[in-house]
Amino acid sequence: MSELRRDPIGGRWVIVNTDHPSKPEEFEYEPRTFRGGTCPFCYGNEAMTPPEIEAIRDPHTSPNTPGWQVRVVPNKFPALQIEGELDRRGSGMYDMSNGVGAHEVLLETPYHQKDIYDLSGEEVEKFLSMYCRRTVDLIKDKRFKYIMIFKNYGAAAGASLEHPHTQIVALPMVPKNAMEEIRGAHHYFNYRERCLFCDMIRQEKEEKKRIILENKYFLSFCPFVSRFPFEICIIPKKHNGFFYEISAEELPALAVILKDTIIKLKKIFPNASYNFIIHSSPINGDSDTEYYHWHIEFMPKLTRVAGFEWGSGVYVVATPPELSAKFLREA
Amino acid sequence: MSELRRDPIGGRWVIVNTDHPSKPEEFEYEPRTFRGGTCPFCYGNEAMTPPEIEAIRDPHTSPNTPGWQVRVVPNKFPALQIEGELDRRGSGMYDMSNGVGAHEVLLETPYHQKDIYDLSGEEVEKFLSMYCRRTVDLIKDKRFKYIMIFKNYGAAAGASLEHPHTQIVALPMVPKNAMEEIRGAHHYFNYRERCLFCDMIRQEKEEKKRIILENKYFLSFCPFVSRFPFEICIIPKKHNGFFYEISAEELPALAVILKDTIIKLKKIFPNASYNFIIHSSPINGDSDTEYYHWHIEFMPKLTRVAGFEWGSGVYVVATPPELSAKFLREA
Repeated sequence: MSELRRDPIGGRWVIVNTDHPSKPEEFEYEPRTFRGGTCPFCYGNEAMTPPEIEAIRDPHTSPNTPGWQVRVVPNKFPALQIEGELDRRGSGMYDMSNGVGAHEVLLETPYHQKDIYDLSGEEVEKFLSMYCRRTVDLIKDKRFKYIMIFKNYGAAAGASLEHPHTQIVALPMVPKNAMEEIRGAHHYFNYRERCLFCDMIRQEKEEKKRIILENKYFLSFCPFVSRFPFEICIIPKKHNGFFYEISAEELPALAVILKDTIIKLKKIFPNASYNFIIHSSPINGDSDTEYYHWHIEFMPKLTRVAGFEWGSGVYVVATPPELSAKFLREA
Repeated sequence: MSELRRDPIGGRWVIVNTDHPSKPEEFEYEPRTFRGGTCPFCYGNEAMTPPEIEAIRDPHTSPNTPGWQVRVVPNKFPALQIEGELDRRGSGMYDMSNGVGAHEVLLETPYHQKDIYDLSGEEVEKFLSMYCRRTVDLIKDKRFKYIMIFKNYGAAAGASLEHPHTQIVALPMVPKNAMEEIRGAHHYFNYRERCLFCDMIRQEKEEKKRIILENKYFLSFCPFVSRFPFEICIIPKKHNGFFYEISAEELPALAVILKDTIIKLKKIFPNASYNFIIHSSPINGDSDTEYYHWHIEFMPKLTRVAGFEWGSGVYVVATPPELSAKFLREA
């Protein structure tokens, strides 16, 4: 018999295959491959991108030249554009507005072939700190209500370019998924007068069976209600609604737990693609950070989404999170 | 500049690429392929499946033997099982229950290589009528609250078996996506005292620019707020909340419009995979059919879902629905 589980955050149900769980070797995932060719994000090819927005560079090097360690450029094919007004309007029963926002690409390292697991803790810390710097800058634009920071790694995860990069999108509204999480957390807070995520950390630490890694400031675990096998959540132990307010003590700890989690995943699925997304509170609104708690959602791409999931929003999870966590812990 | 559009049903925003729309030849989709091998769903292999639940057969042929045109069998690896009690319970802050439900596979035709576009209108009608028969039967089980009918066509759409088939899942709760649509439609009805979908049909017929096909009883169009390029909605013109209540006059018209829509899609994307899902009202509850209107959501698999979509729930649509509809109309 499978198990139905209900997400305490958004109320989503998932079906967990507890009867015949899939083992790692049973996933026929599409392996990440390198196509080669000239990369516009590589060291020395700075002229191939639009002018850089911000970078961490060696002293006395000029923008748009070599000498950088982390570099942020505008997306050449942006989903949303910085210029213009939102101009919300209707057309009969439909509603629309102009695609105003920002869409940036953050190059995590000058090296095409290096990835998070190859970088030193300090190098990972460096690009994570740039996530914060970009957020602080984008918040100044009062048209923006949400900053989405996410990584597509490998073609199966939707990456069209190979060079290690993260994308930052500033949105003129709070997107659906963030809104659902925030509403759910608010609802929980109103009922219990406690942060849902702090309660989750407490229960995970007590039960131990879904934890992968833990350090002084962070926890990495497989959520009780995962949408995907080997899905991972990385969460700060200290309550805070905003990712960009991460402290100087927390940042190196996040770099280490992110890197070590990916190393463990790579030991089990050497060529798997993945996405990760930073979930943080909305900006420039009346958002209350008391009830929301930022975290990273990490999703290896091992399976395909089919009609059942698209139609119902209910995901069938081939490996229970408890088993995924055990494999990852022991990797 | 791209365009942000807001779904009148669920409130979801999408980003429509109106600036540099992708043309059909620009989609690098994974083509559907045949792997071959013995198929448990083929004519003559009836013993390879669990005993059939229901079939449309030639007179004087026995169950689980050849002689069928449409055949329904239990899924050998069901997501949910018919036996047992739901037994809802908690574990600390988490909620769960047993995976009670039904999971059936409907074989649309005895022929492995035939697909909806190869079948006659009467053959399509036959398997669609079986969708209704199975629903009527499953509703009798009062534990079930929703019947999900969906088709995965091709590996990119999550199909693991090639033989033309549809899946039917009976769920012990109303799934998230259905709940969102129903709530949105209810909200609209409370405000306007009209069915949202009837209003949508009226506007689409007036504007004409998103319509693909129309017959006496059905409309096939690309929704104003699509999540995917070339997404299609097939909807009955006559208001009704329940798919299985389709009339004897409507059924052949649905068979024809479904088949003809797929033929048009196939002309543009010869080997594309797709999913389709029947959206219908919940069963065995206090569901009011005044404000909901059943329809088919049809999604060709031409692109990959990436971190932005997974994280935000906001989809970036490479081809505006108006352009998708034009290509399909003229195909």
